[in-house]
Amino acid sequence: MQVQTEQPLSAGIVSLLPIFYVGWSDTVLSPSEINFIRGKVESSEFLTPEDKEYLLKYTDPLHPPSEEIFREWIHAMQDISKQFDSSQKKSLSQLGIEMAKVTSGSEDNLWKEPSVLRAIEEIQTAMGLNSNSSLNLLLKQDLRINNDDHTVKSKALNDFIDQRDIATKQKVKAVLKDPVFAKKHIADKEVYRLQVMSWLQKLAQQGYGGYAFPKKYGGSERMGEHITIFESLAYHDLSLLIKFGVQFGLFGGALYGLGTEKHHKKYVESLAKAELLGNFAMTETGHGSNVRGLETTATYQPETDTIIVNSPSKKSGKEYIGNALHGSMSVVFAQLIVKGESHGVHGILVPTKDKDGNLMPGVEIEDCGYKIGLNGVDNGRIWYHNIEVPRDNLLNKYGDINDQGEYTSPIKNPNKRFFTMLGALVAGRVCVGMAGINAAKSALAIAVKHSVKRRQFNGKNSLEEIPIMDYPTHQRRLIPRLAKVYAYYMSMCRLADDYTAVQDGDMREIETQAAGLKAMGTWLATDTIQECREACGGKGYLAENQFAALKGDSDIFTTFEGDNTVLLQLVAKGLLTDFKQSFHDEGAMAVIKFLYSKLSHTMTEINPIYVRNTNIEHLSDSDFYDHAFRYRQEKLLITLSTRMRDYLKKRIHPFDAFLKCQNHMIALAKAYVERMVFMDFRTKVEACKDPMARPLLDQVLQVYSLSTIADDRGWFLENDYFAGSKSKAIRRLLDKRCQELRPEVLALVDGFGIPDELLAADIAVG
Amino acid sequence: MQVQTEQPLSAGIVSLLPIFYVGWSDTVLSPSEINFIRGKVESSEFLTPEDKEYLLKYTDPLHPPSEEIFREWIHAMQDISKQFDSSQKKSLSQLGIEMAKVTSGSEDNLWKEPSVLRAIEEIQTAMGLNSNSSLNLLLKQDLRINNDDHTVKSKALNDFIDQRDIATKQKVKAVLKDPVFAKKHIADKEVYRLQVMSWLQKLAQQGYGGYAFPKKYGGSERMGEHITIFESLAYHDLSLLIKFGVQFGLFGGALYGLGTEKHHKKYVESLAKAELLGNFAMTETGHGSNVRGLETTATYQPETDTIIVNSPSKKSGKEYIGNALHGSMSVVFAQLIVKGESHGVHGILVPTKDKDGNLMPGVEIEDCGYKIGLNGVDNGRIWYHNIEVPRDNLLNKYGDINDQGEYTSPIKNPNKRFFTMLGALVAGRVCVGMAGINAAKSALAIAVKHSVKRRQFNGKNSLEEIPIMDYPTHQRRLIPRLAKVYAYYMSMCRLADDYTAVQDGDMREIETQAAGLKAMGTWLATDTIQECREACGGKGYLAENQFAALKGDSDIFTTFEGDNTVLLQLVAKGLLTDFKQSFHDEGAMAVIKFLYSKLSHTMTEINPIYVRNTNIEHLSDSDFYDHAFRYRQEKLLITLSTRMRDYLKKRIHPFDAFLKCQNHMIALAKAYVERMVFMDFRTKVEACKDPMARPLLDQVLQVYSLSTIADDRGWFLENDYFAGSKSKAIRRLLDKRCQELRPEVLALVDGFGIPDELLAADIAVG
Repeated sequence: MQVQTEQPLSAGIVSLLPIFYVGWSDTVLSPSEINFIRGKVESSEFLTPEDKEYLLKYTDPLHPPSEEIFREWIHAMQDISKQFDSSQKKSLSQLGIEMAKVTSGSEDNLWKEPSVLRAIEEIQTAMGLNSNSSLNLLLKQDLRINNDDHTVKSKALNDFIDQRDIATKQKVKAVLKDPVFAKKHIADKEVYRLQVMSWLQKLAQQGYGGYAFPKKYGGSERMGEHITIFESLAYHDLSLLIKFGVQFGLFGGALYGLGTEKHHKKYVESLAKAELLGNFAMTETGHGSNVRGLETTATYQPETDTIIVNSPSKKSGKEYIGNALHGSMSVVFAQLIVKGESHGVHGILVPTKDKDGNLMPGVEIEDCGYKIGLNGVDNGRIWYHNIEVPRDNLLNKYGDINDQGEYTSPIKNPNKRFFTMLGALVAGRVCVGMAGINAAKSALAIAVKHSVKRRQFNGKNSLEEIPIMDYPTHQRRLIPRLAKVYAYYMSMCRLADDYTAVQDGDMREIETQAAGLKAMGTWLATDTIQECREACGGKGYLAENQFAALKGDSDIFTTFEGDNTVLLQLVAKGLLTDFKQSFHDEGAMAVIKFLYSKLSHTMTEINPIYVRNTNIEHLSDSDFYDHAFRYRQEKLLITLSTRMRDYLKKRIHPFDAFLKCQNHMIALAKAYVERMVFMDFRTKVEACKDPMARPLLDQVLQVYSLSTIADDRGWFLENDYFAGSKSKAIRRLLDKRCQELRPEVLALVDGFGIPDELLAADIAVG
Repeated sequence: MQVQTEQPLSAGIVSLLPIFYVGWSDTVLSPSEINFIRGKVESSEFLTPEDKEYLLKYTDPLHPPSEEIFREWIHAMQDISKQFDSSQKKSLSQLGIEMAKVTSGSEDNLWKEPSVLRAIEEIQTAMGLNSNSSLNLLLKQDLRINNDDHTVKSKALNDFIDQRDIATKQKVKAVLKDPVFAKKHIADKEVYRLQVMSWLQKLAQQGYGGYAFPKKYGGSERMGEHITIFESLAYHDLSLLIKFGVQFGLFGGALYGLGTEKHHKKYVESLAKAELLGNFAMTETGHGSNVRGLETTATYQPETDTIIVNSPSKKSGKEYIGNALHGSMSVVFAQLIVKGESHGVHGILVPTKDKDGNLMPGVEIEDCGYKIGLNGVDNGRIWYHNIEVPRDNLLNKYGDINDQGEYTSPIKNPNKRFFTMLGALVAGRVCVGMAGINAAKSALAIAVKHSVKRRQFNGKNSLEEIPIMDYPTHQRRLIPRLAKVYAYYMSMCRLADDYTAVQDGDMREIETQAAGLKAMGTWLATDTIQECREACGGKGYLAENQFAALKGDSDIFTTFEGDNTVLLQLVAKGLLTDFKQSFHDEGAMAVIKFLYSKLSHTMTEINPIYVRNTNIEHLSDSDFYDHAFRYRQEKLLITLSTRMRDYLKKRIHPFDAFLKCQNHMIALAKAYVERMVFMDFRTKVEACKDPMARPLLDQVLQVYSLSTIADDRGWFLENDYFAGSKSKAIRRLLDKRCQELRPEVLALVDGFGIPDELLAADIAVG
């Protein structure tokens, strides 16, 4: 069925075909190399003028041979291979000579001349193509993977993606490659927990537990790098990651952030060394998302100058508490009651075990048992039955009890105080988002490495089945997600930097961004890991290929450190508040209506040109994406604001108004995050000057933008932002860009810089 | 902030308020009950004419009190509760009297008269409301759950959804409720596998292994019910389900379906009793989806009249084989070679163990180890090293070796033969689809039962936090998926019936449908289970609440019995073939183009009316859905067909043309399945005459249709099938319908008829 209309190639052309073929598929030629080849071709006596003209045409780096030409070359080699021992390995120049012999017939002696071979060899050497191959291998190899420059490209990409603290990342990965950290599947939770505990101690021995704490307590005082260490652990066992986060981030972070010098002096050094193990007892069975409604009480007793911590009911027990069984101290979040008055949620240190490891009286601990994943973490339930602790155990930075037994606080507004204390959760959200995305990187690396090797069904070249990565459905499955993971990660890095920079400043915007990125990032992770599992078929189901761990362990990321849906509502509320505050409340409604009409008007005006513009240049232009993302966010914000005000005007109860707008709020929050990611990623890409990485990153930015817009094309179409024809053009272009990125897909995942030892998946190696 | 403009209610009204309030929220009144109440109200001396008028207004079943009135009643009771011991439990009539006393003031003696209490008590009794309650409880209870008619409704729904073989389903569930089947989380795979093995034998003892086989071999000869038994097992442990499917469906089914009497006589009875355990050795490491490319050979040796079964390479080993370790016989799928000629894939019986359980020489078995789930199934890899079996071991229904050592087959066309043999997989696809959907039912039942109880954040009624099921985001999360599960299940039941009916007839259409429903149904299951897990927050992560098992075990359903993406391509190919065959090939292109122009024309003509019609009646009309689903499918089919032909005309290689259209094919296949599900479900709903179930099912059908259309609104908008305004109206109506179904959501999941013992989730009970 092969339709072949091409003229047969001459012996002269054929003699150089192996070199040209491999050269164009495998390497990037430098200008001086090209000059050398051109000179050689022009001066060769064994080539006819027609041969030279043909070959010179394909030495122009700006005009590489088309796919058709490539196919012609393949057909020519396939034809010759029938009359040829195509399994024999030779140098490319020898292969060329042999092929020329076949083409010209045995009577032509030209191809037996050593000078001809030498001339061709010179070109071969100049192009750095001195390894041997067989014709068979040449034909079978996947032309579209650029093996030779692969390492260079991957490194350039890794320099880009890991630009934030790259040295620290490399150090952590080097440590994790040590055989003591060898990943393993451990079914029994008790055995697994002990393994994780031992890993945790090894990390503490490396000093990794103290990055967030001051030097005077033996720490490193490098908060930013603490985040880096945490996220880098996500390439290893996620139980270890979470255990690390609980011990040094939640327990350590709360003790340090909510406590004062007396607490720091007493505990920080030993907790950073993982000698004092503790937990962060916030969530209760009855109250998860609604922290303000916690039932546990901490009642100050003036007679004894102590605080009684108490869980008043079964469902006020603390639940899902990591380090519950290994820890010997809790930071308990409880309603602080002083002189009969409740001052809201505060953190109190409560010892749960004595020095011999026996439970303290009044402490009741229950194992949460097996979970979907993270079975190496000892999550438990803890009840505190009227436990008496000294007044000093109150973490008193934001709320204290003075010597007169009175409550005092530097923050008068209880609402503000509550959110300031909860600020400690922001770091957790930044960290969890990054960890989720890093888990998705591992999944993508495994799936892509498998997909370029795994072959199924014969293609048109019947020599071998084709790699599943060549199927458009497979590309659409993996490549947009790959692009999104690049984009989200870079946005999270920007956020981590900003968070580190403004430690003591106004955190409001960062809190909104952290909530949004955590929610959307962990959903992206769940979705990506699932898609990668399915893309690996049955192999993906086996524990040996790591999806069991990746899926099960990361699944809870969408829930903990704030349920994603609840977080997105926070984002929307933050945006609404900012929006309202941006003009005086008096004429707010008029201003909003004006903005709305302006927005609609803008679109109507640019309608004819813009709405139907299917020009590829336009659709590839990041200004188009910028406008689309901004337009969507602004319109959703203005319409939401208008709706809310209209409801309130109609005297609808604020809670009912909120319920009516809840889905609208989620849509706004998503639009906000997707735009922020776009902007952050674009900024990072534009700052990249590496000639290898930059063109790829430009394409990745396009795929991120096109796929994100296409995913929500229903909204854009509903709002007449673009017409059906443009929407279809966007999808077509997305398909095209995915196909173009196909040859780069291995470099893109190798760019994540995850060592094979950490991927630890059988299908991803060899 | 509560806006209250209502007139205070009189003592007379208040005296009957508890009864009216509970009556309207909790029961359906029969006509004779209503007559009785009306008579009582009219003749009561303690009520003023105004009281009577007010109360009589709310005894009309066609005009129940509005939400506003309900709210008024709640406010009235809240007000009174402030001057009242609202925690004391009393009968509704006593509560009414007490409330009237508070309202009228202590000087009014009317409410102390025993005759008044008696009159109210009579009404109470007539309405069947004789249990005691406190005012507190009355106010707290979720009004919108109709507890009293709940059981009736759930039963009516269950009669509908389980109409196919309901008695068998109940029998299976009754058996599984037996304590020996008590569900448990077993971490160690060896222990777990033994448990599952023992359960399997218990099912076989009940005769469940023989439903698909003839009576003469001890079976029940009821293929349809075999499917029913299988899918009902999905409410229990999915490892048991798969083990059952491997033993009786795949191994038993292949032996019975591909073998002949000699095989039936020898093996069927013992395999149905689970005495002979076997496996279905088809998939190889190197070949999963591409069964035709299997590398294992079965070479006939005329000298010895035997067949040598051989795995020529490491990657030709059979992989993921269930019952690999427990089984003692394989049906090996191998290329049958007779007289040096290959006749394609055939099934051959190969004993893998001797009577003492020792491996047969040449058999090599390796454990697949831990998996994401299904760790109670002993999946393994098997290599057959030149194993010699008698010629009789060839399963010879469709391909045989005669006494002259020649290959013979009743099916001359090797292609047709191959697909006939693979027909055995159709039953597997029907079964796996149903099992996936049933697992999704369990997930929905758990999530919904949790969500109506779980409360988080205060609503406007500050007495208590509100159930998370009341949040619109939560409704949009669960209710459309609930509707889809209803719809897919009913479509699968129709398919199972058709499959059973045409056992020996033309299976082509059924194969297409089974492939499509399996793919879309298992994706729906994966998505639904994940959403339900997240909807349960941290509780969903604990193994005790079953999502660990549901998620992990069902995850592979999207891959096995045919990878979903590959299956959807089969569907599209089937549709294309049928389409092409529906007219002569000569003028096919002209006909297609004519159809296409007609289709476009139709839309253009109805444009002005149809495309912008946002009328609720229109959007609620199943004819609208019918048209939308049909239009989408037809347009995708015609455009795909046109594209393919255009490519082929341009002499593009068929494989390249297929790659170019792959995403288009998947879109067509999805549209086909979604339309089929709609049509099947509508037919079933329309046949339902139950007055309780029918109105609910009509709503469920609407939610299925609206959400399915809304999910793909990008396509409909791109193709100008509807305008933006209509698309928005569809989404609004979907939100509204979800909200309307909120009070029915518990009945809808109880309608699945899954006993608590099988749900076995802590959060789903009590």
